[in-house]
Amino acid sequence: MRTVVPDGPSGRLPEAWRFCVGTGRFDLALRRDYQDSLALVQREIGFRHIRGHGLLSDGAGVHRPYEHGGARRVRHSFTYVDQVIDAYLDLGIRPFVELGFMPSGLASGDQTVFWWQGNVTPPASWREWAELVRATVAHLVDRYGLDEVRTWPIEVWNEPNLKDFWQDADRDAYHRLYEVSAYAVKEVDAGLQVGGPAISPGSDEWMVRFAEFAVERGVPVDFVSRHAYTSGPAQHVPFGVHQTLAPASGLLEQFATPRRQLAGTPLADVPVHITEFNSSYRPDNPIHDTAFHAAYLAPVLAAGGELADSFSYWTFCDVFEEVGIPAAPFHGGFGLLTHRQIKKPTYHLYAFMARMGEDLLARGEDHLVTRDAAGRVTVLAWAPADVTGGPAVDGHTVRLSVPIGNASSAFELRSSVSEEHGNAWAAWCEMGRPLSPRSGQLDVLREAAEPARTHRGVPVFGGRADLDLTLGRHEVTLVELTPVVDETPPWWDERRLLGLEPGPGGEGR
Amino acid sequence: MRTVVPDGPSGRLPEAWRFCVGTGRFDLALRRDYQDSLALVQREIGFRHIRGHGLLSDGAGVHRPYEHGGARRVRHSFTYVDQVIDAYLDLGIRPFVELGFMPSGLASGDQTVFWWQGNVTPPASWREWAELVRATVAHLVDRYGLDEVRTWPIEVWNEPNLKDFWQDADRDAYHRLYEVSAYAVKEVDAGLQVGGPAISPGSDEWMVRFAEFAVERGVPVDFVSRHAYTSGPAQHVPFGVHQTLAPASGLLEQFATPRRQLAGTPLADVPVHITEFNSSYRPDNPIHDTAFHAAYLAPVLAAGGELADSFSYWTFCDVFEEVGIPAAPFHGGFGLLTHRQIKKPTYHLYAFMARMGEDLLARGEDHLVTRDAAGRVTVLAWAPADVTGGPAVDGHTVRLSVPIGNASSAFELRSSVSEEHGNAWAAWCEMGRPLSPRSGQLDVLREAAEPARTHRGVPVFGGRADLDLTLGRHEVTLVELTPVVDETPPWWDERRLLGLEPGPGGEGR
Amino acid sequence: MRTVVPDGPSGRLPEAWRFCVGTGRFDLALRRDYQDSLALVQREIGFRHIRGHGLLSDGAGVHRPYEHGGARRVRHSFTYVDQVIDAYLDLGIRPFVELGFMPSGLASGDQTVFWWQGNVTPPASWREWAELVRATVAHLVDRYGLDEVRTWPIEVWNEPNLKDFWQDADRDAYHRLYEVSAYAVKEVDAGLQVGGPAISPGSDEWMVRFAEFAVERGVPVDFVSRHAYTSGPAQHVPFGVHQTLAPASGLLEQFATPRRQLAGTPLADVPVHITEFNSSYRPDNPIHDTAFHAAYLAPVLAAGGELADSFSYWTFCDVFEEVGIPAAPFHGGFGLLTHRQIKKPTYHLYAFMARMGEDLLARGEDHLVTRDAAGRVTVLAWAPADVTGGPAVDGHTVRLSVPIGNASSAFELRSSVSEEHGNAWAAWCEMGRPLSPRSGQLDVLREAAEPARTHRGVPVFGGRADLDLTLGRHEVTLVELTPVVDETPPWWDERRLLGLEPGPGGEGR
Amino acid sequence: MRTVVPDGPSGRLPEAWRFCVGTGRFDLALRRDYQDSLALVQREIGFRHIRGHGLLSDGAGVHRPYEHGGARRVRHSFTYVDQVIDAYLDLGIRPFVELGFMPSGLASGDQTVFWWQGNVTPPASWREWAELVRATVAHLVDRYGLDEVRTWPIEVWNEPNLKDFWQDADRDAYHRLYEVSAYAVKEVDAGLQVGGPAISPGSDEWMVRFAEFAVERGVPVDFVSRHAYTSGPAQHVPFGVHQTLAPASGLLEQFATPRRQLAGTPLADVPVHITEFNSSYRPDNPIHDTAFHAAYLAPVLAAGGELADSFSYWTFCDVFEEVGIPAAPFHGGFGLLTHRQIKKPTYHLYAFMARMGEDLLARGEDHLVTRDAAGRVTVLAWAPADVTGGPAVDGHTVRLSVPIGNASSAFELRSSVSEEHGNAWAAWCEMGRPLSPRSGQLDVLREAAEPARTHRGVPVFGGRADLDLTLGRHEVTLVELTPVVDETPPWWDERRLLGLEPGPGGEGR
Repeated sequence: MRTVVPDGPSGRLPEAWRFCVGTGRFDLALRRDYQDSLALVQREIGFRHIRGHGLLSDGAGVHRPYEHGGARRVRHSFTYVDQVIDAYLDLGIRPFVELGFMPSGLASGDQTVFWWQGNVTPPASWREWAELVRATVAHLVDRYGLDEVRTWPIEVWNEPNLKDFWQDADRDAYHRLYEVSAYAVKEVDAGLQVGGPAISPGSDEWMVRFAEFAVERGVPVDFVSRHAYTSGPAQHVPFGVHQTLAPASGLLEQFATPRRQLAGTPLADVPVHITEFNSSYRPDNPIHDTAFHAAYLAPVLAAGGELADSFSYWTFCDVFEEVGIPAAPFHGGFGLLTHRQIKKPTYHLYAFMARMGEDLLARGEDHLVTRDAAGRVTVLAWAPADVTGGPAVDGHTVRLSVPIGNASSAFELRSSVSEEHGNAWAAWCEMGRPLSPRSGQLDVLREAAEPARTHRGVPVFGGRADLDLTLGRHEVTLVELTPVVDETPPWWDERRLLGLEPGPGGEGR
Repeated sequence: MRTVVPDGPSGRLPEAWRFCVGTGRFDLALRRDYQDSLALVQREIGFRHIRGHGLLSDGAGVHRPYEHGGARRVRHSFTYVDQVIDAYLDLGIRPFVELGFMPSGLASGDQTVFWWQGNVTPPASWREWAELVRATVAHLVDRYGLDEVRTWPIEVWNEPNLKDFWQDADRDAYHRLYEVSAYAVKEVDAGLQVGGPAISPGSDEWMVRFAEFAVERGVPVDFVSRHAYTSGPAQHVPFGVHQTLAPASGLLEQFATPRRQLAGTPLADVPVHITEFNSSYRPDNPIHDTAFHAAYLAPVLAAGGELADSFSYWTFCDVFEEVGIPAAPFHGGFGLLTHRQIKKPTYHLYAFMARMGEDLLARGEDHLVTRDAAGRVTVLAWAPADVTGGPAVDGHTVRLSVPIGNASSAFELRSSVSEEHGNAWAAWCEMGRPLSPRSGQLDVLREAAEPARTHRGVPVFGGRADLDLTLGRHEVTLVELTPVVDETPPWWDERRLLGLEPGPGGEGR
Repeated sequence: MRTVVPDGPSGRLPEAWRFCVGTGRFDLALRRDYQDSLALVQREIGFRHIRGHGLLSDGAGVHRPYEHGGARRVRHSFTYVDQVIDAYLDLGIRPFVELGFMPSGLASGDQTVFWWQGNVTPPASWREWAELVRATVAHLVDRYGLDEVRTWPIEVWNEPNLKDFWQDADRDAYHRLYEVSAYAVKEVDAGLQVGGPAISPGSDEWMVRFAEFAVERGVPVDFVSRHAYTSGPAQHVPFGVHQTLAPASGLLEQFATPRRQLAGTPLADVPVHITEFNSSYRPDNPIHDTAFHAAYLAPVLAAGGELADSFSYWTFCDVFEEVGIPAAPFHGGFGLLTHRQIKKPTYHLYAFMARMGEDLLARGEDHLVTRDAAGRVTVLAWAPADVTGGPAVDGHTVRLSVPIGNASSAFELRSSVSEEHGNAWAAWCEMGRPLSPRSGQLDVLREAAEPARTHRGVPVFGGRADLDLTLGRHEVTLVELTPVVDETPPWWDERRLLGLEPGPGGEGR
Repeated sequence: MRTVVPDGPSGRLPEAWRFCVGTGRFDLALRRDYQDSLALVQREIGFRHIRGHGLLSDGAGVHRPYEHGGARRVRHSFTYVDQVIDAYLDLGIRPFVELGFMPSGLASGDQTVFWWQGNVTPPASWREWAELVRATVAHLVDRYGLDEVRTWPIEVWNEPNLKDFWQDADRDAYHRLYEVSAYAVKEVDAGLQVGGPAISPGSDEWMVRFAEFAVERGVPVDFVSRHAYTSGPAQHVPFGVHQTLAPASGLLEQFATPRRQLAGTPLADVPVHITEFNSSYRPDNPIHDTAFHAAYLAPVLAAGGELADSFSYWTFCDVFEEVGIPAAPFHGGFGLLTHRQIKKPTYHLYAFMARMGEDLLARGEDHLVTRDAAGRVTVLAWAPADVTGGPAVDGHTVRLSVPIGNASSAFELRSSVSEEHGNAWAAWCEMGRPLSPRSGQLDVLREAAEPARTHRGVPVFGGRADLDLTLGRHEVTLVELTPVVDETPPWWDERRLLGLEPGPGGEGR
């Protein structure tokens, strides 16, 4: 059966998939490898915002208590903050600000999270926290301008529903943190956007309570946020974990939850940001590096924009240290890119999305079809990804009839990643999994990471071209069809390439 | 039948194939597109020298007669010469100097060659010509150092055996030009290398006479040079020509001719430089743009180094104006690259050669096998290219047993260009042959120009791996085999990727 | 006497000075040195448009007649046009299109201008000319978009009032050329801007007649244009000329002429573009390279914007070949930059203008004062430039009272070029005028080309700072005054830098 | 009195001043700001080696214990090490390896040093430490080649004579550490260079005991090392300290100590490396940012090479976190450059040294004179720097008679930094000491940081030029004198620049 793609658009393809992307802790953005990776990502994908932890942790150096004249004072210092945000803006990406974690000089306890020891206790002084938030936001407005900073969502803390991230997972304390922070932000400018509660999956009731709290007390909430992951418990091996995964549809269900929860409440219309999502929540699960992973997430990227205002892939690169310093180039990191910019299959899923058109023509369980203003029709198709370990399908077919317009032929460019192609992880395994690849090996891995590309001319009949796509194991493929304007001159005769059918004239030399 | 590649090298792979490359006229090297192309070529291929016409033509502005105090004087000006040669050295390539053509202010007549009108008449004053040569060479030595310039061969004129390039193809006049020029060069420094006669195919007797002349008169000759082409008469169409081609073996025969001719003479041991070669001598023959062309030249690059000290592909890029300004991105230019750096299949033939190792293990009619110091074995193989228009072979096989050493497996990376892959010309034809491709189309053409790449692990038995290569139409393929050092940790179990065979421990979240 | 600069702006500083800049012939824009120069100019000055000759001359390769099927046909080819204009837009500058000169394949005669032989005869076929114009403009619209191209003025020919530039300086023939061209442009889109007559100084009546002709026949004229130069007859020496100059006020008078001439006519309100201006019209007059030249033009840049909508400095760099290839790094070229980006004093005049604010506070005979949105007050001041060879003034003073606002001090940064500083030409003379400077000498010349810079804190009383500027010979100086926000901490005590006034505590080590 | 500089060299200028430079902890080298700074330093100064702490600390992630199969094992991981050293080599600088501090997984205690908490306790297992050293060095040899790594000195630990840096400053424990480490290094290759004891000033007897120990036990010592500083106790203020300084001659005395101490011992001839030196040992002493500092160190750089084989400035840039994250752009850091590459006066002292010639002509208490192979004579001169707070000298004079050779004139280029020029710190103070400078302010600071430059022609009589240098407060000046080859054409007449003395011919226009 061939699916007939309508000629008219059913709407715009939402940009929720690229509204935001995740990153390792704030000061890692000072690294060259990080910035090289971000430059590449921005050139080929083009996210709008970037969100990560640690803006207020010690590694960013903002909160600097000192004594002078016998009194405790605090300098707010933005040496690193400026360097990072200047770099972001240079690279065409804006902060999605996360307020956290607690500076050790302001913390009420010494509980920390991660290898890099982010303090997760409430402030010892709510006044000093409010001042820290106000000073930080005011500095951003002063340096980057109010119009600019009004476009940066500001989220209060991260996953306060987990004891690891917020001491005792104390909801009342979080509500207080939210309230104090939100007012501190609004004190700088009422037009700034503040939101929460940034919860992880598994505590859906927090969203409801957060909404009740906010409405009850009239605390400003410009957006709500939560996270989405589908992995089961971690099975540890040295330097890594394995986990079961729920089907990808589970991510879409999580994306949809806040709107459903808030329907009918005063917060029904605020934007919903999924400020983190991925399959596994672990930065050392090798599934992130695989071709499976791209096929698994393809339907999520294709459809997620109908359910939330953004869903932010956690994270754009492997420069990340939550469980320590990565000890191998492929180590199951969240990144779309490894250290040193080897593209993973999921990178290409995003790069393919970035080549889709603005107009949505069709969306199915294994395909998405769009068209851009110049008439280029783009098909994203994917093979099924089975989380139950069934035999992977090799040879899944997608058959479409695609509207092309008046041309008599179309130029088709097809780009694919699969188990066979665009799969640097597989190449690395075949190489013997070198922990410390040489310069030449890195080059080979970068080459192996490129999608397979084919092209051909496609006949158009009645304004339509037929596509019969056969997909390999875990293949994600992008087909771009451009109507052909034929400029072939009348004298062109391919048969004469080797001079074998001489024309009338000849020239001696 | 499987060819068994010996484990020990039979010698070094000669570097004759990369010793020199051709270029359009001197002042085109001032262009950014040219320099961008050369930078790319140098990064991925790495030629040692570059040779082209026009150093002394008006466009380079060297010979500048003027009057002062009632007398004719000449300033030798190097404004552009310095810019070009500075750029060459910055890009890691050295000049192969060609002395020519005649500055109009020194010419005895007004006959010119090419759209850009290089004057091809003898000097009006032999003394002033000698002074021009001496001053130019002295300037180079002064600016770049004697040690450096002694490595630059200096060739006198271009194809003087053709009436188009040297008035009346007057051999005696050429011999005089050679003698005057050679002595002018040696006057600067006796250690500089000078040579000729830079003849085109079809006048082999010129080489014999040149040698007789030089020996008889004791004129210094540090190398001899000639050109090699295999195309028949031009059959003109608008903006192009078609020509028959002789088999590629004809190029090897031409390469071999000088040594054969000079055997037994006092010039028997001077280096032989093939200072130009290609299939067609026309810059508007579309055969240059095809996959056929790479397959046609592959055996020439593989074997030519046994026959001559260098053979210089004419030319590295399409920035070239001998028959006028190119009127389409693919127009049959000589270049390995089109304007704006779209790689042609022949570019990849050279890039593949650049990845070969130093030690020659085997050479056959459809393959070349080398090994580098790190133990990487490299196979270049090619499908037959039939100039008689017979049906192109699809499925040519090359079967080899390759020595790998002690590893139990090898990592294989295979890169191919053919009618199907790495063939931007084909993509351009499918696009409708746009004369003025948009920015997006240029990007697609650059993507389509990349080789197909595959990789896999190859088992090694008894220190050997079996290769069974099947080649598509006009395919040229590079196979790189690297012995694997296995760093896979003992706990790795691929089946656990999806968490389905849980290990002993589990972690909650 | 101290001039009191008003605190309120008297208007905006017009951008006429940077609306357009001149360039050598079209295909020189393909050069790397040219593009490197333009990149530098755009980074530090930022012109809006660029105008030069030769878009339709043979060197750009647009008009390509051929025969097919027994008939003459013409291909319009944009290989080089695309490369150049793509580069312009990448560098943030837009074409000011000049239609000319005549392609040799369309010319009615063989009269040429310049070393590079631009054909200056009327078309052999007016129809084919119209088609050439239409096809060229249509291509631009197709490639760059109508909105974009509507911002590019399109000027018909160059200096038709001179026999060297238009055969016989035939006014009627020019009017016909204008009419045919203007209609060809408007045929593509009525919103495109077309204008003329692009006359040189000395034929003012041409403007009047052009207006009469256009009005009489209803030919579209979206702007008028002329040139302005102040030099006398050329006194030739080898590789150069000397000329007397009229005072710089003569340039302002020429700028003002079109508006005066057209007052009261239907063309009274069309924009007036001075599409070329300079002191000397010769590309080999060393005056262009001097400190005198910057001081000479300073009052012109400061005031010209009140008289015309643009005045385009001829030209931004020395990559220029009208009288042949430059034979020395300083050769009297028009450029703001020499080959290889050595900045001339006039470059800095423009770079200083680019640092002026938007609001005009004051303009005097030796100064211009502006303020930007951030409160930075900027003073451009200049010493007098005497064209009569009187003794150059060393020690000219400019005394101003400048409004600063509420700060108690201002930070002053002063940048100057003069005979002593920022004068690479003087350094080159002291070096012995090397025709072919070595790499190290080029570095020294680039260093010598930088302005002298000083800075200091300036006290502010009553919201005002007093400036007492003393200017050296031919000095042009830029003073930037920024109100100080003092963040010096209370504990800072400069006297303790060397630890000599110990505070209460000490630390052992 | 004029000092007559001899025409013949008295020797080569030692390269000890550039043999090595210091850096903040190892993993800071991953930062972009760091690498940008290092690229600038290498372009304009060109150090040979770079040395810093923390290669084996947790932040580099090398030592990675884990459990598998019930046993403790250690993976040695080089993810960051490779990134850093690859970058160093790309930038043309080699490691001066320092082995330290202790990985927390191998430490015997929890004493740490610095904000970043380097563990300074002996290893819990000497065997595991030896294995760590051996594996690290073996990895370097494997990745970078033995020939390369043999040029990298390997130093054992840092300042073990201080309790802050080595638990209890236990000398015997250090000797054991040295012995175990040295043998581990030599086990990889006997040709690698290992040394110590890397002591700080104030414990000179450690050197004697180290030598005795090494000789007695036959432990290999390929070089010895110590540090040199001249500052007194720290007088704390918030975010900084003040300290008295001993005269700069004290540094030279410290440089000379090891050779004096080892004279007559078996270690008399081993190289002496001063692996750290500066005025103050504090990274928050503003003296580092001043013009005083360059004048203070000038005689040290000029003469130090006679006393030690290297003396390594601590450190090349302000990316450094020993006392926390810098809270202002100028904060008294060690760096030659601030964050974001603002050059301090001491940077220019080094850049001036890098322009000195190879041949030493003269050295005095306020000057150093050299000549390079091309005949360029270079004079470095400096004003006195008084540490006692006496009134700073403004107007110190240096009078020299300099040999030039046969030219009749010389081109003089003079570059200076002083209180007035090349002093970004002063500009920053005048700006109000902004903690977080805007982008425009950073540009101004970079401009203010450039040296003042002047140039002139200098007459030469009898092969000599007279220099009369007057130096401003704390000025360090570089004078470069190049013999002039005069290429001025005979027709040049400066008086004709304005066309006022017309020659015979004229041209109309």
